[in-house]
Amino acid sequence: MTQTYFHTIVIGAGSGGMTVAVGLAGLGKQVAFIEGNHVGGDCTNVGCVPSKTLIHLAREFKLGDNPDNVLREVIRKRDVLREKETHEVRDLKNVTFIEGWAKFTAPKEIEVALKDGQTRKLTAENIVIATGARPRLLDIPGLPAERVLTNESLFDLRDAPKHLVIAGAGVIALEMAFAFRKIGTQVTLFALDDRPLVTAIPEASEALRPEIERAGIKAYYGATATGFDEASRTLTLNQGGTEIRVQQVDKVLVAIGRVRNLERLELEKAGVTVDKRRGVLVNTFGETNLKGVYAIGDVTPTSAFTHSANAQGRRVVQRIAFPLLPVAKNEPLFPNATFSDPEVAAVGLSPQQLKEYCHPGVVKRIRVDFKTHIDRGYTDEVENGFLIVDAVRLTGQILSVTIVGPRASEMISFFTLAISQKISLYKIYRLVFPYPTYSSGILKVADFFMRETLTDLKGELAAYLKYRFAK
Amino acid sequence: MTQTYFHTIVIGAGSGGMTVAVGLAGLGKQVAFIEGNHVGGDCTNVGCVPSKTLIHLAREFKLGDNPDNVLREVIRKRDVLREKETHEVRDLKNVTFIEGWAKFTAPKEIEVALKDGQTRKLTAENIVIATGARPRLLDIPGLPAERVLTNESLFDLRDAPKHLVIAGAGVIALEMAFAFRKIGTQVTLFALDDRPLVTAIPEASEALRPEIERAGIKAYYGATATGFDEASRTLTLNQGGTEIRVQQVDKVLVAIGRVRNLERLELEKAGVTVDKRRGVLVNTFGETNLKGVYAIGDVTPTSAFTHSANAQGRRVVQRIAFPLLPVAKNEPLFPNATFSDPEVAAVGLSPQQLKEYCHPGVVKRIRVDFKTHIDRGYTDEVENGFLIVDAVRLTGQILSVTIVGPRASEMISFFTLAISQKISLYKIYRLVFPYPTYSSGILKVADFFMRETLTDLKGELAAYLKYRFAK
Repeated sequence: MTQTYFHTIVIGAGSGGMTVAVGLAGLGKQVAFIEGNHVGGDCTNVGCVPSKTLIHLAREFKLGDNPDNVLREVIRKRDVLREKETHEVRDLKNVTFIEGWAKFTAPKEIEVALKDGQTRKLTAENIVIATGARPRLLDIPGLPAERVLTNESLFDLRDAPKHLVIAGAGVIALEMAFAFRKIGTQVTLFALDDRPLVTAIPEASEALRPEIERAGIKAYYGATATGFDEASRTLTLNQGGTEIRVQQVDKVLVAIGRVRNLERLELEKAGVTVDKRRGVLVNTFGETNLKGVYAIGDVTPTSAFTHSANAQGRRVVQRIAFPLLPVAKNEPLFPNATFSDPEVAAVGLSPQQLKEYCHPGVVKRIRVDFKTHIDRGYTDEVENGFLIVDAVRLTGQILSVTIVGPRASEMISFFTLAISQKISLYKIYRLVFPYPTYSSGILKVADFFMRETLTDLKGELAAYLKYRFAK
Repeated sequence: MTQTYFHTIVIGAGSGGMTVAVGLAGLGKQVAFIEGNHVGGDCTNVGCVPSKTLIHLAREFKLGDNPDNVLREVIRKRDVLREKETHEVRDLKNVTFIEGWAKFTAPKEIEVALKDGQTRKLTAENIVIATGARPRLLDIPGLPAERVLTNESLFDLRDAPKHLVIAGAGVIALEMAFAFRKIGTQVTLFALDDRPLVTAIPEASEALRPEIERAGIKAYYGATATGFDEASRTLTLNQGGTEIRVQQVDKVLVAIGRVRNLERLELEKAGVTVDKRRGVLVNTFGETNLKGVYAIGDVTPTSAFTHSANAQGRRVVQRIAFPLLPVAKNEPLFPNATFSDPEVAAVGLSPQQLKEYCHPGVVKRIRVDFKTHIDRGYTDEVENGFLIVDAVRLTGQILSVTIVGPRASEMISFFTLAISQKISLYKIYRLVFPYPTYSSGILKVADFFMRETLTDLKGELAAYLKYRFAK
């Protein structure tokens, strides 16, 4: 007889769901693991894995190489990993893997529409929603569907487009713009935003702008697409009233944001609270308004990265399996990284949070530029790159960090550790950093902070006392 | 009248000396700054700066590029920086820059042999010895002087050798072997050591070996040079009794170690204690047996890196300028980094120290391989690379870390911070690392440690109690 009752049902076999399913099954719990699409979710199939493979191969790409071979190698490596993960999931002890689409029929009841047209009913003590998100689409009048790509179809391309237009200027848009440019594709980017990577601090955008230009990527900010003429393959843009005609377009990659995969779930039948804009609302332990129903990853408001979905998954495993053990009350710090060229990475308070939580008078901003302050920036010809650290005056407590540079994604974890362990710039000042690395810029930040603080101790103290408790 | 009395005399204008001179002068102290050679020392002139410029340009080198252009660009960039630093030193307020060779005539008395043949006598309250080191030479019978290179002459080469032989398998030897190979030079390396990078843990050497081979560098370990025949340009090596004939040799780069620059100083006249093998002996504050006489950098036993000379210099500045302020009692942790391909970086106890301080029964070794454990290793095709962390069983206190990988030099500072702030693997387990980075391997280390510890808690506790205080 088919099993219908489980300890936990996990809906969605992406990174977050995998963390929960593997974690609980490893602890001996009976898990039903439901996926209607590919195992591995976005990350393995249409996200980090193929995109980083492409970025790596594009970096190694040399004049005369065949760009189609690059794309085919991306597909091959993606398929190998997908195959491996699918087998691993099927073989997991204590896991019942069910291929199909799940919906709620009651608070703790799930109905799965199986591939063969049948349905299967399941119940469980705990249900974890990890269905992720999909690309938001863009309607461009006259643009035929076969010219449209999203990250979901991009990595099935076997032939490199000659001219790729990218709609959007966020993480995916920028990563793909640099990578395709390197394998010889002509790249035109347009975005509604008035700057690249609008989620980062404006200084990061200002560093990216000239690098985008230097790479030979044509970019239009504050622009919308008004139409496409298939006969001439011309895309028409409107930038502040000016009409721009982008010609000889082969493909248009739409990377303007994401939509949460919630509709199929019929959450209203279970009574789970969903905010239209922010997604499934959860407390700091990942639990929804319904006891025993959790949500992690892209469907939640807090984060849209593989690593944050994993981190949320780990917390949910701990919460479900060891309900009496204390879980750190606050969510951990979520760093972020964009694998553009240069890379951009950040951790700590977002610009919005910084404004919300701290009076600007108490924040000291230190900026170190790789080109002028750091020998490695000089030897490696880094034109645009920096460390920007916002710290509390006088105490040197770090609030927020943004790094733009060739290895920013590997440098940021130093600050994740420093912020989460409340290690001030005074302590960092005593550390030794290998020379000549980009990381020696971290010491320079501490140097600058010390010098500015010690040479105006009275002013710093006054500002601290005046503003520290102002907000 | 020429000034003869100073607050501090700094002998040697390399990285360490510069840190002290700039630091004290900035605090208003009168400094005499003596250098017989180029300002900037090894780092700017014949070390890190030109070598990292070469490594960077070699990485960007494409088939068909002219290798001579690479070497000339290295020279150009080095000269720009040298010029800039020389001007900066001459313009430093409170600094009297003296070109010439210094020697002690009494404990606090220096005589400088000036370039014009004259001498100048100086005295000071404090004297800082920062004369650094020079390459150790190797006598190969029959090898003409014009074929011999050291790091001091290497970066004056304007034409790339067709076939470069490198004597040695340490940091400089390996960095230059990979870089010259990338610009098309045939590279043959031989060393007395039985493995590459003998100062690292054996696992690092094992990871480097296949990468050296893959790069097309021919390497002979446990080998000595027995002679050179100029007519046929053939170098003869002896490897365990077997004769090897290396043909068509253009240049031989000798990188077999360093000799401290102490002879000219006539330290015996001042009574400064020197150990023949270990150099100028200093306490943890950099002070020699003679009160007010300090030594930093390569002339001391502790470290031979630019960043450690700088760190020692910072401590000496603090000690001299603020003698009453507490200085951290122990020297800071000195990380090290080799910019080979892959890079090798380490921090914490050396293999020798680990044996000395800890019973092997209390040490738990965690190894994470990039290729098999980390997605970024998979996407970026890292064949040989790992994180190895030695930690105290049960407590997770980190003792020692070695990283081999493409960005190891930027990843190591995370561990410098963790070790110096005594942050255990339990705390690291709660951090979030951006995906897909090499640094996410750090989380994997913590995962492995947790899993192994929790699944055998009794065994781990027993081992801990048995061996913790055994040594």
